[in-house]
Parts: sequence; C-alpha cells; structure tokens
Amino acid sequence: MKSFVIIGHKAVSAPFSLNDLPGAGRMDILCRCVNAALFLSHDLRRDVRVYLVLKGGAQPKLVRFDGSSLRYLSPDERSAASLIKKALEKNAQGFWTESTPGVSIRKGDLSNLLEELNKKITYLREDGMDIRGKKFEEPLFLLGDHEGLTDEEEKIIRGYEHEIVSVGPLSLHADHCIVLLHNEMDRAEKHI
Amino acid sequence: MKSFVIIGHKAVSAPFSLNDLPGAGRMDILCRCVNAALFLSHDLRRDVRVYLVLKGGAQPKLVRFDGSSLRYLSPDERSAASLIKKALEKNAQGFWTESTPGVSIRKGDLSNLLEELNKKITYLREDGMDIRGKKFEEPLFLLGDHEGLTDEEEKIIRGYEHEIVSVGPLSLHADHCIVLLHNEMDRAEKHI
Repeated sequence: MKSFVIIGHKAVSAPFSLNDLPGAGRMDILCRCVNAALFLSHDLRRDVRVYLVLKGGAQPKLVRFDGSSLRYLSPDERSAASLIKKALEKNAQGFWTESTPGVSIRKGDLSNLLEELNKKITYLREDGMDIRGKKFEEPLFLLGDHEGLTDEEEKIIRGYEHEIVSVGPLSLHADHCIVLLHNEMDRAEKHI
Repeated sequence: MKSFVIIGHKAVSAPFSLNDLPGAGRMDILCRCVNAALFLSHDLRRDVRVYLVLKGGAQPKLVRFDGSSLRYLSPDERSAASLIKKALEKNAQGFWTESTPGVSIRKGDLSNLLEELNKKITYLREDGMDIRGKKFEEPLFLLGDHEGLTDEEEKIIRGYEHEIVSVGPLSLHADHCIVLLHNEMDRAEKHI
C-alpha cells in the first residue's frame, strides 16, 4: 500500500461549484493529485490510497480515495471534484463513511489523520534528500498544496518518525511530484 | 527551446463546452498536457512550446502555447481549455494567428506541423529506450493521447530523423510522461 496525504489549506469542506474548482480553495490542485496518484494509462493503481485534508472550512474534513475499491473516477479534474463534492454532501462523522465506492469522508484535521495512520512519514520539501535510487516500503507521502506546509504542520509531523525527500532541482506542483515518486517506485519494483 | 507535440485523435476543432472536456474528444487530456509541459510551482517554463493536434473535426487544426509570451493560463484544466476554446473561435488560416497572448492557431494536421518544425523527433513508446541519463538538446517530443499513435502517424514520423524513448516500466498518461521528461532534463541542466 502506498499512501499520499495532500493538505489543502484553503480547500472548502462544504459542497462547491464544479465550474470553479480554483474558487473552491484551489480544489483543482487536490483533484490533480488524485489523478496523479491513482491513474495508469487505461488502469488504476489499486495499491494506492489518497487522503485529502480540507482545511478551508470551519470544520476541517478528510476525504479518502482507496484505489482497491474505487469506482466512477475518470482522469479529468471535474470527475475527481464530483466525487469529492458527493463526499462533502454526506453528514460527516468522526469516523469514515463511504460516499461512493472507494471514496470516504470523516471530520478531522491532519493531526487526526496522522494519529490514525500512525506510521513513518515521508515529507516532500525542496531541501530534502534526492529520491533517486531510494527504496520506499509501504510509504506514507505527505505533500502541501501551493502554500507548502505551515510551521504548525511541520511540528505535527515531527511527532512521528519521518524523512524529508526531494524530487528534483526545481520547485514543482504537488501532482507532478506524485508522478515522479510513482516512477521511482515503479522502477524499483521492476528493477530498472 | 523544448517542444511537445500532443496528438488529440478525437479532440474537436470547433468551440466546445467547458463543462464537459472529456466529451469534447478528450480535450481534458490535452489540457493536462499543457499544464505538465508549462507549469513550475508559482512559475511558467518560458523555454517550452506545446503544440496540440486537434484531429476530431472535419478540418484538423493546430494550437500552439508558447511559454515565452503566454498569459492568462492557470494550472486548472478548465483554464487551458478556455484558451483553446478562444483559439477555436478564431477563423483559422493556413498560418499561425494569435488568439490570446502566447496562444496561436492554424489549420493543419500532424504532417503540416512536422514539416514546419522540420527537426529530429523524439517519440514516446513503451518499447523505447529508457530516458534516464539521456541528454536532450532542443528536443521535439511527440506523444499520443489515450489512443497512442496510428500506423499512418508513425509513417509520417519515420520521414524524419527520430528516436523512440520510454519513461519507465508502466504505461502512463501523456501528461505524466511529460512530467518525467522535464525532470530528466531539469536534472541534466543542474547536473544532478
């Protein structure tokens, strides 16, 4: 299992218009991360879970995409957004509730999620160690949106075993980083 | 200059609804390729040109995004789609006409475009040579959409100096391939 946590600092936690994803607290960023984490050409990565942290509302919420049981996801941003919106229409509780096959929602913030997952965190930052040649076993990757991570979030992460990695010499969008992480793992698994 | 040509086999060449990009002949694929080719975090890659081949209408058309003069492009799919739609609202000629800053359109098909560019083509296919460690100078990359390339397109390409490369062991979406190509070039340029 490969897990990706993406923090949406402004991402709304109530239903939003599918015609303006940037206006929903840069929901477009999270949708592209869902695509990058889950899609192969004509197939889904079944061994992936994506956790979105929606921090842009009065009540932070968590949305989970589970590749092993996911249905109705197409590669376009609007498709991921539509599943997130359906999840947000649920009356979220303090535990996971499935909204559509493979998509679940709960109330909670980053600290609740990391407490639940309770494992080593691989955190992306430009000054991290290069991922080339690294091996990742059952990794939990954590990425920020366009705002990076706050000091408070970094403090939460430091409460767990963690490492900091970098995907290359330039600062990239979170979804592009996910593509590069997958490629490194794909190569390691196929020994090329 | 790094150039990317993406062939949209079904992509419409007339204005379309921004609310259904997959329905416009998988225009969503081309929009994600524009994003992957042009965006850095909080910046644009100014040394990139993206050429879209829209083959899904009676009159095939070519749309060009030029990073050096591009304006009004945001990372979301709908933003790229909106600029493509504006280009398609122009009365396209047999030469390039600018529709918005950095976006131009002309009538034409793949053969017209390659004739105009007239340079070595680096073509992505799963059985190609691994890109790791390769150097690319002023490359012209060519990628298919979800349908790959037709025999006729491969024949056109073979009329030019060309090489076939692969980005990894799994079959990926065209936009994910572009992210991996950029990373390899970024690393080569920074010597890491």
